[in-house]
Amino acid sequence: MNIPLTPVRFLRYAEKQFPNKTAVVCQDQRFTYAQFADRAARLAGALRAAGVKAGDRVAFLSMNCHRLLEAYFGVLDAGAVLLPLNYRLASHELSYILNDSAATRLFLGQDFLGLVDSFRTKLTSVHSHHLLDATPQADWLAPQNYEQLLAAATPHRAEITSFDEDSLCELFYTSGTSADPKGVMLTHRNIYLHALHIALFHHTKFEDVFLHTIPLFHANGWGAAHTITLMGATHVMSPRFIPQEVFRLVEREQVGSLSLVPIMASALVNCPDRSKYDLSTLQWITIGGAASFPSLMREVEQKLGCKCFSGYGLTECSPSLATAELKSDVACEPEERYLLQSMTGYAYPGVELRVVDFEDQDVPHDGEIMGEIIARSDSVMAGYWKHPAATAEALRGGWFHTGDMAVVMENGYILIVDRKKDIIVSGGENISSLEVERTLLAHPAVYEAAVIAVRDDKWGEVPKGVVILKPGWAATEVELIEFCRSNLAHYKCPRSIEFCETLTKTATGKVLKKELRKKYGGVSGSLMRRQ
Amino acid sequence: MNIPLTPVRFLRYAEKQFPNKTAVVCQDQRFTYAQFADRAARLAGALRAAGVKAGDRVAFLSMNCHRLLEAYFGVLDAGAVLLPLNYRLASHELSYILNDSAATRLFLGQDFLGLVDSFRTKLTSVHSHHLLDATPQADWLAPQNYEQLLAAATPHRAEITSFDEDSLCELFYTSGTSADPKGVMLTHRNIYLHALHIALFHHTKFEDVFLHTIPLFHANGWGAAHTITLMGATHVMSPRFIPQEVFRLVEREQVGSLSLVPIMASALVNCPDRSKYDLSTLQWITIGGAASFPSLMREVEQKLGCKCFSGYGLTECSPSLATAELKSDVACEPEERYLLQSMTGYAYPGVELRVVDFEDQDVPHDGEIMGEIIARSDSVMAGYWKHPAATAEALRGGWFHTGDMAVVMENGYILIVDRKKDIIVSGGENISSLEVERTLLAHPAVYEAAVIAVRDDKWGEVPKGVVILKPGWAATEVELIEFCRSNLAHYKCPRSIEFCETLTKTATGKVLKKELRKKYGGVSGSLMRRQ
Repeated sequence: MNIPLTPVRFLRYAEKQFPNKTAVVCQDQRFTYAQFADRAARLAGALRAAGVKAGDRVAFLSMNCHRLLEAYFGVLDAGAVLLPLNYRLASHELSYILNDSAATRLFLGQDFLGLVDSFRTKLTSVHSHHLLDATPQADWLAPQNYEQLLAAATPHRAEITSFDEDSLCELFYTSGTSADPKGVMLTHRNIYLHALHIALFHHTKFEDVFLHTIPLFHANGWGAAHTITLMGATHVMSPRFIPQEVFRLVEREQVGSLSLVPIMASALVNCPDRSKYDLSTLQWITIGGAASFPSLMREVEQKLGCKCFSGYGLTECSPSLATAELKSDVACEPEERYLLQSMTGYAYPGVELRVVDFEDQDVPHDGEIMGEIIARSDSVMAGYWKHPAATAEALRGGWFHTGDMAVVMENGYILIVDRKKDIIVSGGENISSLEVERTLLAHPAVYEAAVIAVRDDKWGEVPKGVVILKPGWAATEVELIEFCRSNLAHYKCPRSIEFCETLTKTATGKVLKKELRKKYGGVSGSLMRRQ
Repeated sequence: MNIPLTPVRFLRYAEKQFPNKTAVVCQDQRFTYAQFADRAARLAGALRAAGVKAGDRVAFLSMNCHRLLEAYFGVLDAGAVLLPLNYRLASHELSYILNDSAATRLFLGQDFLGLVDSFRTKLTSVHSHHLLDATPQADWLAPQNYEQLLAAATPHRAEITSFDEDSLCELFYTSGTSADPKGVMLTHRNIYLHALHIALFHHTKFEDVFLHTIPLFHANGWGAAHTITLMGATHVMSPRFIPQEVFRLVEREQVGSLSLVPIMASALVNCPDRSKYDLSTLQWITIGGAASFPSLMREVEQKLGCKCFSGYGLTECSPSLATAELKSDVACEPEERYLLQSMTGYAYPGVELRVVDFEDQDVPHDGEIMGEIIARSDSVMAGYWKHPAATAEALRGGWFHTGDMAVVMENGYILIVDRKKDIIVSGGENISSLEVERTLLAHPAVYEAAVIAVRDDKWGEVPKGVVILKPGWAATEVELIEFCRSNLAHYKCPRSIEFCETLTKTATGKVLKKELRKKYGGVSGSLMRRQ
């Protein structure tokens, strides 16, 4: 008997088994699983009554709140596809995504009224704009807001066997550091199996209380929408990241775990109000979205009193691929432990990871030779929306090519050293731009640093540094290059340094190296390019 | 990306992530996951070299031992189908199963040499008999035993993408209380998803140590072959159930959990040597295979110092469907807790259970009105081997009809009251034969009791008791019927009692009521029959 794998089953199970358990805490509101499921079913009923058809894309632009979480199930129960939008994107990016996906409906929080108003005339497919949380005042908004839609709706719960597990479930757009954002097509099966494997690994239980600190539209944030629901655990929504607010929620709701990006973790450990709160219920924190450092792991463990380890994932993989939670049979000193816990780590159950050279051969486990991380997993996307060529390229040979360059340690742990397109290939050697950037950042005068490849007649490519100095500090090009030479192998050192005032970044805070390459005549290097 | 779901992936993952962890402890032997995986791969290589083809059935007749566990993966990696045999069956049943399944190879433990020799000339498809654990002395045995085959083999690990998740993975035969045994076809997907859901619910972890007390061929035993492997936990094999041996292994290997049938649990709590052993690592015991009692839960919890709860499953469901582990949000007194923990319980994640009347309508949650348990789950079999009509009947309407009659409590807990075919329909009322049997057993003179339906002109059917008295005790038919009347509603009481010396039972210890019906003119009743 094959029952379609769909995340809708998670909410059905929790509703049936734990109807009176607190499912969601959002500001001053609390919903049981019976209420959460009823609201999701009402959303489904409302969407169907409004004419939403199977496969339609329904977009949400919202801070973390219970309504957005309801959409993760209700939109699916209506037969539609959820399109959660990154509210940190610029208006031209949002209109691009809405038009590219041909979304028909947009639900938006009142905080984003001005933003949507700025691009709504450019939208080619969205015909209805629904406010989530306020009374519509403008004529371009649908007269009924989300709550009114739900109140008037007949709850709809689709028959589970009517789902096609291989059909599109969620559409997320990549942040587009190198090109236009691409829609990542995740199927019902992708999401279901991802959640099962991740919850299995982390021993998610009924008693757990999880704080949603990362926006749900973000790769690092959305997985918990499913893993927490499937075991009847409790979601606590955090609309904005404010350290004191995080601490307050941890104390009030007895939160056991949360996910952070490194900069959030730094903010928490450095918040002077920390000691005013009871954080004793915290069990573990996972850090992802950017490279971590052993010192950050140590600080979190010591100051917040819980386990802390890195995680690794990509939008294309639903998202989680690896974890650095210490394996139980590894005995080591604290400092080595923090080093291991800050790494990219090892594959979750259900995931196969390899690190391969340009001939798709596994690199040795020596911590030295770089290769690209490739992944095979139930959670790897069906493909990029309307980009068959990019899909074929990313999934060639039946493995997803992450574009992340890494080394493998003797113990099998993986450590990412750079994005593939940022690698500098100089005289036949691969140079991690991240490693050079870290070296530049270690100079006392350097505030920010980015390193790109520029062409060189002799070496093919050589590293070039782009640096912002700290206010009131000074340093010359020669001085910084010398500093690198005293800390790095000679061939890895920048041959030139440019000083600037700002570095253009994506909505998720990554430096847009393609802009730097355009400005300074850089090239996008990769091992593959050399074939 | 769809990666085939196959339990072979569990061993691949454990081998890669936990190569040096102890995988299997069997008598005085210990194997790491690297060794376990190598041996399974050698078995696969040996089978392929011997000409085993995709889909061939390979049978094992063995006590619980590491070799049988290896077969759960190695036979699959060879592309073949595992057929584990119940060594408690009679020789004519074993030869029937081997011929019905058209198995080509039989691996047997030396304990079963005589048994196999007694029926081997009746076998129509088995052409090779391999000893598992001794030097072959008879000419009908293959010259190489299991260990010699492995030593000579080239390890073979099939490419995971070469599996068809919907193809046959394991073939188990039902015990055949009412007809010839039927082969239950479980697919790779059935087994994979069953294991994921069960391990998720029980928070199976790397550190866990599980003792295989139930034979691996038994519904209550085989699931752990997968759930323990997938998280890199440790298997401890127990070849025969001897209470002192169980205690010794729990103490020596620091066992955390195990599964029992009620009679095993009684033996453990009543074993006078119990206090000589350190059982402090035990965390939980699950009891299945037959109805449990609150007093048994209490005794296990108090005397063995761990949680104890019932489980419910069937061969056709891979097997687990329900658990009675106390829900974390249920607050109750100890005695009520033991009552809940002894029930059939509630559905595991991934499983939907309903209790329905003869029109497939859900019965009310009143603890009174009986219905049949039907199940929809990823773990429900593809069907019965070569029995399309029985398959269609069992899976009608897309739900597996368990044949177990139950009531549903107000809190949603399910309690089995009887097998459907043993229900007595009298004057329009359903009578649980189990309830009448329990009443008879409460009489001090009664040693064993079975209750069947016999025809009655006025009431349609009425209950008839078949009783074995305790040695040295006496009781008359009138006395026993009177005893029932003082403890049961009048219509539920037997109208006649037969006394006998023995009751014929199946290999798994269930009374063969079809024999009693034949002997005493009984009828096989059911709600459905009345449509």
